[in-house]
Amino acid sequence: MSMARALSHINGNSVFHVPCRPKPKRQCPLQLPRRVFKVTVSCNQSYWDSINSDIKAHLNRAIPIREPLTVFEPMNGLTFAAPRSIVPALCVAACELLGGHRDDALPTASALWLMYSASFTHEHLPLTQSCRPKSDVRHLYGPNIELLIGDAMIPFGLELLAKSDDRTQNISTRILRVMIEITRAIGSQGMIYKQYHDVERHRSNNNKSYHVEKLEKYEGTLHACAAACGAILGGGSEEEIEKMRRYGLYVGKIQGMVSRAERNDKELNKSVEEMRRLATKELSGFNEAKVQAISTYFESDFMYAQF
Amino acid sequence: MSMARALSHINGNSVFHVPCRPKPKRQCPLQLPRRVFKVTVSCNQSYWDSINSDIKAHLNRAIPIREPLTVFEPMNGLTFAAPRSIVPALCVAACELLGGHRDDALPTASALWLMYSASFTHEHLPLTQSCRPKSDVRHLYGPNIELLIGDAMIPFGLELLAKSDDRTQNISTRILRVMIEITRAIGSQGMIYKQYHDVERHRSNNNKSYHVEKLEKYEGTLHACAAACGAILGGGSEEEIEKMRRYGLYVGKIQGMVSRAERNDKELNKSVEEMRRLATKELSGFNEAKVQAISTYFESDFMYAQF
Repeated sequence: MSMARALSHINGNSVFHVPCRPKPKRQCPLQLPRRVFKVTVSCNQSYWDSINSDIKAHLNRAIPIREPLTVFEPMNGLTFAAPRSIVPALCVAACELLGGHRDDALPTASALWLMYSASFTHEHLPLTQSCRPKSDVRHLYGPNIELLIGDAMIPFGLELLAKSDDRTQNISTRILRVMIEITRAIGSQGMIYKQYHDVERHRSNNNKSYHVEKLEKYEGTLHACAAACGAILGGGSEEEIEKMRRYGLYVGKIQGMVSRAERNDKELNKSVEEMRRLATKELSGFNEAKVQAISTYFESDFMYAQF
Repeated sequence: MSMARALSHINGNSVFHVPCRPKPKRQCPLQLPRRVFKVTVSCNQSYWDSINSDIKAHLNRAIPIREPLTVFEPMNGLTFAAPRSIVPALCVAACELLGGHRDDALPTASALWLMYSASFTHEHLPLTQSCRPKSDVRHLYGPNIELLIGDAMIPFGLELLAKSDDRTQNISTRILRVMIEITRAIGSQGMIYKQYHDVERHRSNNNKSYHVEKLEKYEGTLHACAAACGAILGGGSEEEIEKMRRYGLYVGKIQGMVSRAERNDKELNKSVEEMRRLATKELSGFNEAKVQAISTYFESDFMYAQF
């Protein structure tokens, strides 16, 4: 089977083909050497694009714009308002790498998407006495609605996940394990901790190095969680789950580095290259065609996703 | 066995005995006829008090004040800052009524407590351009912290619940069902919907009757959910689960009525009496000693809990 065919049918899932026309280039936050950050637009990118399209379709089915419109319209709107993130797709890719079916990972990926969107919404709420710098995010709704709908999105995502339990397949234990992974990652140990330190960082600029160090410690937590969840759902062994967790962590750290435009290019380039090497190492031993598909990430514009 | 002894040992759980001294009377929002709202302070009240103490102890073990203090201190503080609610204890009481062990319901009750506290915290956030009336709630922390810690409390509660899965007992399916109940109740269908309409009500005072009608429709959703969850965990049949759901709903509606001090006493008194009759009817057929213990609710000052 040719590589192209292998990529278009992973685990019997027909991959959604995005027409092969070059997309408008997204503005890159940094001028980076082409060797590492080569942004080519080819049919290979359709692997990540197709995952993203499937998650979006799943979410649109889960949050149709229906009555009461006052609740479902903003929930749908805010779900898709956050900048693109690799996190949900990482979960699906890891599941497929481990031999799972794409459909098995879509509810978890959707839950992760909702968590991320809720976090983004709350991160940009206009609070009184806020210590944050003014955000230039366009607000789709009033602050009350953005607060409450953000609150609803977290349990709604977990409800989607809990409902995906299929008693005939006896996967309740896997779903509960995934639930623990996600709730922990977005709870005090992970994303919230990061947000908390973001706030603290803006409050006290006098101790910057401490904060960057803290940020780096927690960066990639959600990416690591997403990849580990995919591996759990794909039926991976403990060793495989931990390999995917580390893979996700490196991917998350790369995204963090790219998003922090403070360092000079040379230093950044070196760090990214090292992370990419470590990430690729974690994929050794898995099905080669699938590894190839996943690795297109480093050539895709997902690299420049904000989160 | 005497009633006192029956009450002090339900399902083999030794009930925490609160010393029999009269508590300071809480201010009642309404002057109500003594017949319905007789506030007696007796040893019987120790049933609900003991449940509440056990949930508090469980939460204190789950959220000890430990490092990082910047996260766990406010999480602990905000968890216990919300006004007392009957919701978590309802879950434990329903579980015990159905023959379950108190310990089986404590993680779910703790999750419900955290959901309620998170909701209370966010409901009183000082937002810019807020349409809400000014709240006189004392803020323990800055608005950023209250927003983020509130965000962390929802997944943290669900993590506690997911972690309570005991593979040796094969209860994963029950836990997932409870998870669906809770996430649905606090998501778009329930509490959030209510909050959303609270906000809308304050925004447009010209359509009050419509909003009260909407409020009443969703009132008691979380109480109904808590009681149904307890019944699920206690191993109840579908019919028993639905009976407990209705019981919780009536209790929730009573609390809603008591908290809305707009109507005249006579009308309110009649409605409360009718709800109490319906609630009591749902308990028929269950173990009499346990029904007696649960029914002390109507004599306790839990009736005047804010939520």
